[in-house]
Amino acid sequence: MTLNAADAPFAAHLSGLLPEGVLRPVEPRYLTEPRGRWQGQVGVLALPRTVDDVATLVRAAGQWRVPVVPYGGGTGLVGGQVMPDGPAPLLVSLERMNHIRAVHPEENVLLAEAGCILADIQAAAAKADRLFPLSLAAEGSCRIGGNLSTNAGGVNVLRYGNTRDLCLGLEAVLPSGQIWHGLSRLRKDNTGYDLRNLLIGAEGTLGIITAAALKLSPVPGSIGTAMLSVASPKAALELLSLARAQVGEAVSAFELIHRQGLEFLTEVLPQVRQPFETLPEWCVLVELGLSGGRAASEALEHLFETALSAGLADDGVIAQSEAQRHALWTVREHLPEANRLIGSVSSHDVSLPLSAIPDFIKRAAAAVAEIGPFRINKFGHLGDGNLHYNVFPPKGHSRTEFAAVAGQVQRAVHDLVHALDGSVSAEHGIGRLKADDLIRYGDPVKLAAMRAIKTALDPVGIMNPGAVLRG
Amino acid sequence: MTLNAADAPFAAHLSGLLPEGVLRPVEPRYLTEPRGRWQGQVGVLALPRTVDDVATLVRAAGQWRVPVVPYGGGTGLVGGQVMPDGPAPLLVSLERMNHIRAVHPEENVLLAEAGCILADIQAAAAKADRLFPLSLAAEGSCRIGGNLSTNAGGVNVLRYGNTRDLCLGLEAVLPSGQIWHGLSRLRKDNTGYDLRNLLIGAEGTLGIITAAALKLSPVPGSIGTAMLSVASPKAALELLSLARAQVGEAVSAFELIHRQGLEFLTEVLPQVRQPFETLPEWCVLVELGLSGGRAASEALEHLFETALSAGLADDGVIAQSEAQRHALWTVREHLPEANRLIGSVSSHDVSLPLSAIPDFIKRAAAAVAEIGPFRINKFGHLGDGNLHYNVFPPKGHSRTEFAAVAGQVQRAVHDLVHALDGSVSAEHGIGRLKADDLIRYGDPVKLAAMRAIKTALDPVGIMNPGAVLRG
Repeated sequence: MTLNAADAPFAAHLSGLLPEGVLRPVEPRYLTEPRGRWQGQVGVLALPRTVDDVATLVRAAGQWRVPVVPYGGGTGLVGGQVMPDGPAPLLVSLERMNHIRAVHPEENVLLAEAGCILADIQAAAAKADRLFPLSLAAEGSCRIGGNLSTNAGGVNVLRYGNTRDLCLGLEAVLPSGQIWHGLSRLRKDNTGYDLRNLLIGAEGTLGIITAAALKLSPVPGSIGTAMLSVASPKAALELLSLARAQVGEAVSAFELIHRQGLEFLTEVLPQVRQPFETLPEWCVLVELGLSGGRAASEALEHLFETALSAGLADDGVIAQSEAQRHALWTVREHLPEANRLIGSVSSHDVSLPLSAIPDFIKRAAAAVAEIGPFRINKFGHLGDGNLHYNVFPPKGHSRTEFAAVAGQVQRAVHDLVHALDGSVSAEHGIGRLKADDLIRYGDPVKLAAMRAIKTALDPVGIMNPGAVLRG
Repeated sequence: MTLNAADAPFAAHLSGLLPEGVLRPVEPRYLTEPRGRWQGQVGVLALPRTVDDVATLVRAAGQWRVPVVPYGGGTGLVGGQVMPDGPAPLLVSLERMNHIRAVHPEENVLLAEAGCILADIQAAAAKADRLFPLSLAAEGSCRIGGNLSTNAGGVNVLRYGNTRDLCLGLEAVLPSGQIWHGLSRLRKDNTGYDLRNLLIGAEGTLGIITAAALKLSPVPGSIGTAMLSVASPKAALELLSLARAQVGEAVSAFELIHRQGLEFLTEVLPQVRQPFETLPEWCVLVELGLSGGRAASEALEHLFETALSAGLADDGVIAQSEAQRHALWTVREHLPEANRLIGSVSSHDVSLPLSAIPDFIKRAAAAVAEIGPFRINKFGHLGDGNLHYNVFPPKGHSRTEFAAVAGQVQRAVHDLVHALDGSVSAEHGIGRLKADDLIRYGDPVKLAAMRAIKTALDPVGIMNPGAVLRG
């Protein structure tokens, strides 16, 4: 159906319906995204304070047939937050709905509005002696509504799950403009279809999440971090199995890093101190969080010794202080920035069945080498089968020289991922970047069901048009 | 839309489309359910061997506008598997799709067909030195397709989650008769709407699950079980917090039992040996599963000592052998059977925010006492906020004497649950038993969204009509 632009008459109509201060001039920062791939259009910007404001906005947009783009922290990497074409949209930024409505430490539950910054939620949980385990690079600026809408992942998925797994209930405005009051604190509730998980990961195409009931966890009594060099991804997987056999769920993070990433750090971020004298071909960052009075450093030493004698690791560093722990994480956390400075030809956020990872790494290298003499930086959340697989120009060359084959590289990597039963979007979502991939690689029956659900809940198609489902 | 009965001409049509042996005479066991509330009608029974058979059945049912009732182990407690009125249905029992297609211990994944009996899946996981943690009373006869369709709970939800949380991917036949190939082994996959979780818990109204990729866990190295008497539900909740502070996720089960349940055992199942000389007002069954070489019995002793000195527990038994462990579980597991033998006036499977449980127990007792001199047996999965709250006639009286007020009792309990932000179906589902409750207590916006989704995916309304969504 044809949509109309969010123009001056629409803004005038809205201003009669909403409290003062909700409508704002559209600043340029709302129209860009981290990788600079898209440029949004100037429509109307609203900063609602309440769920009722949001409902008013969505109802009006439905009546005027104006597209609505929900906006969180703007940190998404697949363009879900920027609508570059079609009629200029109503941007609904949740940033003023940033209150933590309640903390229930005795229930391990926290109720947060969608505009809460992730780090603020982490801090509120910590203040109540609890852990909100979602942790990712953008945590200082991303907002929980966006994390939920994209089902964000991050470094603690192995132990605590994706954002989906950390949510008990939602309050949301559906495309009809009606408010769903589903802010449940219940651990078990089998009353009807799972609307919560349908909205989570829908990237704003089925409604606007306005608040969430989030699961907290006990804070592990002792946290320990180590970086171990391993011979291969296969050895890394075996080390992970060993770690879980030794400490069970206490393995909080297990990050794989390839030498290329460490070399990039040396090249463009030499101030980042690296733990190894000689850069290993592969290494893993392991974090344990133990309870029951057990010392994580001892458990790591035991793991390291067992791994050494089993031939799974050949060198390693166990952090002996919080500063050393921080230093190890600094290495991991600066990999994306180093990538950005080098400039990738093509970046991929993929996941694979765990046992397919060694094969994928081997075959992808061969496939990419056929296209050009690229450098490949692969790193990621090994325990989740999630690799960030990024392809770079050879040293001394720029990405622009390879612009013509970037699509070919992407296709080769994604084709291989698909052939190995993997996913071309592990944790970043589909947005606008991968809408065509969804058509190419997605199950056609699932895609048809998605379209039917979208049409059923949003018959006019106002919610974030062009994201996830194309055309 | 009007549906037609699964009659002889329809059966003849099907027999031309399907391999021999798929169509069977309808035996009476397919037309009853455990609590004897409904009686099914004789239509057509199909026992498909493959997902293609299932697709053929559903497509034909769509063309002939015949209702389809998917059938698992038949153990559901809310009548989801029995269609007592309307045109006689096509019953599709998955019992012959009972193969474990693959076990991937290195990925902690198992692929099972929907007709696999839960205990067989547990055994296959154990054979690969892994744990499939879903565990519930019916595990010897319920089938995983039914567990998924009802999002079954059980005793290990506290640590491992509901069935929903144990599933990575599905293969299913949608109401269109198309096959969704979504049997993903991926831990992270953000490619579009969460169709998996929409089908899980939909109780067969949105399609037929034919196979699932299930998450396995490492087997804890040391398992320990104790039964501790506690002063109150509040003390039990504090004991749970203490246990989690001491051993983190290793608390696998935490079951609350009221004296009434123990008295029922004495009354009707005296052969069940009970651990306490004097029956305590409240007790909890705690199970720990530890890794890392730690002895669960020592951790339980430490917990018991701390609980004693904090005044949270006043007596207790820690199992010293597998036989003793089994004996403690026998007490818990025979509570439903004792209930059945006594005969309840009204049974409730409810969940509450954890901190509301003490208040609920107090107020529910008062509300029920206003209706009659009932005995109340409340027990359940305290860590999940899930209580089985069952109301019985006074000693020496029969349930039939109170048949006239059973509805009143149910209403009083459910009204209170609803007022305290709880759920009237924690783990059993809606089925036909609670379809009216869903209308009464459910969020109307969610209900409208559910109806829209149902119509979008099943426009003719063939899938399990009358279950979940009424009329």
